[in-house]
Amino acid sequence: MRLPVLVIGNKNYSSWSLRPWLLLSHFGVAFEEVRLLLDTPQFAVEVGRHSPTGKVPALHDGDVHVWDSLAICEYANERWLDGQGWPRERAARAVARAAAAEMHSGFTALRTQLPMNSRRTPDAYRWDAAAQRDIDRIQALWRALREAHGGDGEFLFGGFGIVDAMYAPVAVRFDGYGVEVDDTTRRYMQALFALPAMQAWRAAAALEPESVLATDALRKPLPA
Amino acid sequence: MRLPVLVIGNKNYSSWSLRPWLLLSHFGVAFEEVRLLLDTPQFAVEVGRHSPTGKVPALHDGDVHVWDSLAICEYANERWLDGQGWPRERAARAVARAAAAEMHSGFTALRTQLPMNSRRTPDAYRWDAAAQRDIDRIQALWRALREAHGGDGEFLFGGFGIVDAMYAPVAVRFDGYGVEVDDTTRRYMQALFALPAMQAWRAAAALEPESVLATDALRKPLPA
Repeated sequence: MRLPVLVIGNKNYSSWSLRPWLLLSHFGVAFEEVRLLLDTPQFAVEVGRHSPTGKVPALHDGDVHVWDSLAICEYANERWLDGQGWPRERAARAVARAAAAEMHSGFTALRTQLPMNSRRTPDAYRWDAAAQRDIDRIQALWRALREAHGGDGEFLFGGFGIVDAMYAPVAVRFDGYGVEVDDTTRRYMQALFALPAMQAWRAAAALEPESVLATDALRKPLPA
Repeated sequence: MRLPVLVIGNKNYSSWSLRPWLLLSHFGVAFEEVRLLLDTPQFAVEVGRHSPTGKVPALHDGDVHVWDSLAICEYANERWLDGQGWPRERAARAVARAAAAEMHSGFTALRTQLPMNSRRTPDAYRWDAAAQRDIDRIQALWRALREAHGGDGEFLFGGFGIVDAMYAPVAVRFDGYGVEVDDTTRRYMQALFALPAMQAWRAAAALEPESVLATDALRKPLPA
């Protein structure tokens, strides 16, 4: 039996790759990883062999090819997680899917101005009002979900699931750019960063030698 | 028993609203419709009562609030369609979800430069190479899906489902802007436009008196 293959980008930068990688890793699904280097000439050549859109992540499970982060999570949920990826209750599952979909299609200002950069540490770099509105909306959403569905768990719907995998890259952004966060967000980020799978991803990201210059250039020294 | 409420925008313009509206209508799910007028001062006031993101569509089914088009389709699939919204076979379902997700997060050039305008008729207005790449990718995807999964049916996976609802607004764009299409696309668009629910939506759009000026302004007369 061949292992499923997850094609990802650099762990330091590829927020969309982190989502399914984290889900599969957290739930102990064995898979083979193929890492393609973003922002290199080889990427354009190699990604075509793995994805019809020229983007990562992509999953190959035998003859099944799935080329989108959310669709990979849905497939993994059916194929390996026995439905554990979403809340068991239908109404809560609908809300979790709405939150995941909001991340999937939205927050373009945040994504553009605060691209994921796991090695980053806060400095004086700042963003515009549109990105701040995205940040505020995400924190309001997290508060609402934790309050209504968090229960005794540490994640948005109690235990870790797909919706948390979808927002995990946001936690990395908030951390690296020094976003001012509320208590709910701080605790939620701590829970995400304490996941062994998340620690493994970030440790690997820290050791990657490759640099995406445009992302690393988003820096500004603190005033002297 | 109160009917579920689907909050939508103008039928002429709101591509994201068309998706769940078409799915629910096609499968005969009874629902109440609330139409908010895009690009008006009232919209900003009223949408806040229905959606935490300030966007349409949103679905209210009793206490369940779902605020994203794809998530509404997933919820409808579980709540009313007994799974008929996606292909029955898991591998095909994964591919259908990837295609739906690609539409959900992508094709920004197409969406920006060819916004849905159901009343529109082709003229000399044209778009840039990025939008044309989106158009080409969509047609390549449709060909691949029809070939692998279409079988004897008229839609991407045979019978009409969520993935077709997600791409239905693209058919309206191709039609209204006079996009040059291949035979597969032409036949697929004909099948979509022949759906009674699609005809009902477009007939209502044709009668709406309101105009979104920025969208209607995307016109260019044919050379004399």
